[in-house]
Amino acid sequence: MVDKLKIQIADQFPFLDNKKLLLATSGGLDSMVMAHLFQQLHHDIALAHCNFQLRGVESFGDQKFVQDFADTNKIPVYVTQFDTLAFAKDYKLSTQVAARDLRYNWFYELLESENFDYILTAHHADDNIETFLINLSRGTGLEGLTGIPAENGNIIRPLLAFSRDEIAQYAHDHGIEWREDSSNASEKYLRNKIRHDLVPLLKELNPQFISSFQKTQSYLQQSEAMVEDASIMVYQQVVRQEEDEIYIDLKQLLRLPNYKSYLYQWLKEFQFSAWDDVYNLVDSLSGKQVYSSNFRLIKDRDFLILSPINFEEQQQEYLISQGVQDVKIPLKLSFCKVNDISVSANTAIFVDEDKLDYPLILRKWQEGDVFQPFGMEGKSKKLSKFFKDEKFSLLEKENCWILCSGEAVVWIVGYRQDERFKIQSTTQNILKIDLQ
Amino acid sequence: MVDKLKIQIADQFPFLDNKKLLLATSGGLDSMVMAHLFQQLHHDIALAHCNFQLRGVESFGDQKFVQDFADTNKIPVYVTQFDTLAFAKDYKLSTQVAARDLRYNWFYELLESENFDYILTAHHADDNIETFLINLSRGTGLEGLTGIPAENGNIIRPLLAFSRDEIAQYAHDHGIEWREDSSNASEKYLRNKIRHDLVPLLKELNPQFISSFQKTQSYLQQSEAMVEDASIMVYQQVVRQEEDEIYIDLKQLLRLPNYKSYLYQWLKEFQFSAWDDVYNLVDSLSGKQVYSSNFRLIKDRDFLILSPINFEEQQQEYLISQGVQDVKIPLKLSFCKVNDISVSANTAIFVDEDKLDYPLILRKWQEGDVFQPFGMEGKSKKLSKFFKDEKFSLLEKENCWILCSGEAVVWIVGYRQDERFKIQSTTQNILKIDLQ
Repeated sequence: MVDKLKIQIADQFPFLDNKKLLLATSGGLDSMVMAHLFQQLHHDIALAHCNFQLRGVESFGDQKFVQDFADTNKIPVYVTQFDTLAFAKDYKLSTQVAARDLRYNWFYELLESENFDYILTAHHADDNIETFLINLSRGTGLEGLTGIPAENGNIIRPLLAFSRDEIAQYAHDHGIEWREDSSNASEKYLRNKIRHDLVPLLKELNPQFISSFQKTQSYLQQSEAMVEDASIMVYQQVVRQEEDEIYIDLKQLLRLPNYKSYLYQWLKEFQFSAWDDVYNLVDSLSGKQVYSSNFRLIKDRDFLILSPINFEEQQQEYLISQGVQDVKIPLKLSFCKVNDISVSANTAIFVDEDKLDYPLILRKWQEGDVFQPFGMEGKSKKLSKFFKDEKFSLLEKENCWILCSGEAVVWIVGYRQDERFKIQSTTQNILKIDLQ
Repeated sequence: MVDKLKIQIADQFPFLDNKKLLLATSGGLDSMVMAHLFQQLHHDIALAHCNFQLRGVESFGDQKFVQDFADTNKIPVYVTQFDTLAFAKDYKLSTQVAARDLRYNWFYELLESENFDYILTAHHADDNIETFLINLSRGTGLEGLTGIPAENGNIIRPLLAFSRDEIAQYAHDHGIEWREDSSNASEKYLRNKIRHDLVPLLKELNPQFISSFQKTQSYLQQSEAMVEDASIMVYQQVVRQEEDEIYIDLKQLLRLPNYKSYLYQWLKEFQFSAWDDVYNLVDSLSGKQVYSSNFRLIKDRDFLILSPINFEEQQQEYLISQGVQDVKIPLKLSFCKVNDISVSANTAIFVDEDKLDYPLILRKWQEGDVFQPFGMEGKSKKLSKFFKDEKFSLLEKENCWILCSGEAVVWIVGYRQDERFKIQSTTQNILKIDLQ
């Protein structure tokens, strides 16, 4: 398997050579085998383990297991603990989705702060087959059948070409130890059923099932990319964005026999759910409308117009008192006094704390908001103009948070700092504000 | 089930009302239930039964069974017999594909000659699930997962929303008799395995599996239509057709990260199989080429150029002597003396036999071919111009047959008759030539 992986990397991921790799390591079979394999191949690796604290003492057992393995093998290791249940509750997420968000957010932080080039996860061929069949059994669209990508930005999944059997065999041959993967019981029941009953049947119908399946999935990925292309090409012809609203030209849209598919593709990210109502708008009377949690779609003569609606959250202000170190809602921000400024990404700013008016206010942007873009002394700019220049989509604008000191904008969070609060030679107290 | 079907028709196929419907009737469970249902709903129906002569006396048993049922119930019935094995051998087709081609060709002939509006087939929900799983087990692309369409031109499949269980229950409740469906043994083994083992497992994972699956398939159909849209939109930007060749602009093509998917979509109908060779052409030296059975793709500086190659078939001439009534190769044509002309579709012409020079010649078109389009007395037109005006694709041109009398074109088969051989008041012998 080492040799096969070596060829696989040369072939599919040649860019991994001489790079700093962070291996996501739960302590389960797959990730322990991945760690062992990459050590054999003499890559520059470190392990990252998340303790989600979902199974009490067992979770800490996993953590200790990974730490001990790293120490024994002299591999750097990063460990963090999450209050996953609290996070899930705060953001109204399933435990599984919460764990995934926490995990990947933390990986990206490590990537940046510790200068890793890539994050590696140990997903394998059977994971993809099982997910495909789970989604198929529940009902799904194309995106539910295409599987997890082998390469997605900085995340690489080098074991996707290997089956669970190969991985288990390797662990057996090399005396690799592991701990059982954590996953919730109902998901586990479903996966086990698929693993032990359904997949063997498919292999009985075709002994080459796994490799045929991998081809199938790669064809479906190609189709999915073409669907995305079609969606974008037709969007450019049929939709125009103006300030806060997008206009869908019905005369042009209805020339397409499959116009519903396009409406679905464009509007799905705005969380509509009553799709029949959305489709029916197309030939409703002017003035008829459909709502999602944050958006309204209205029929107006020859157009469907999508606009944001101001719900409580859009109006709500979150106050941050002096001395607070961490804010978790509506965003995760940390506040920390530092002695010097370092090179910063868009996810952190340094401000002169003495210029701030506490409590700071975290809120959504409002019509009329103005700021002084960092580096443009004395010049002010409307936020609406900034969004336009930066080509923000409607959704990006609505999701954008503003950190204010009184009326003054301190930070368009994650995008641009205000000039007025920047560090100067006279600054005495430096505050670092970090978006996580 | 009658009521559910009634609603289904009102909802999905309202255009069937008061139309002449031809029901494809094998004599098996599904088609006999369909016949019974449509009789209950008082539609204007007739049955069509093909005897493929694949199972000797059993096949004739099926035929008699359908005829008896029709007679008893006073439903018009059409029956035909095919030498399926010979046809399959002649055209190098699998028996299954041969039977399908024969069946649908005959249905279309009946549609035209007997003035039916629609052909109905009895495919049901489980057929789609089974085909999906067979294709999945073997490896497939999106088109292998989207299922048979409920509506495809004149062919309607009104039972697709019903499961096999519902159909069997209806047959049981109404004492409907049927004969076992004919299908080849290995296909039957596979379907049985899927029916009895795989589908029950999926239903165990989700009791609503069939209806979830129907949603899945309708989503996949939407995705497939969008793939087709993308393929066409990019084709229009990147490809130009000139006479006999198509030019793919590589500079434009290679701007697309997923350009291979587009090459595949455009070239698949030209029967290339060495896809890696096709993709590699993109960055080969000028002059490098890849062949399919009838086409050549050559790299020429910034273009890939697709052109037909003249194999034997392209050169071959088929002679038709006077008095011959049926030609089967390379096309199915029938020749028949008639007393009068009737309204004709593109699939039949009437000619003045005394003007013909026997033997007639059936051949592919050649550069320089000229004809006198029907209705344009005395004016001749190049075939190449005709193809261009009619916007023939490269493939359509290559597949087009010409019926000649000596050097003179009599018929661009299936498209346009020549003026010189048309029936006039002085015509004594009328010959009808039919394309089947």
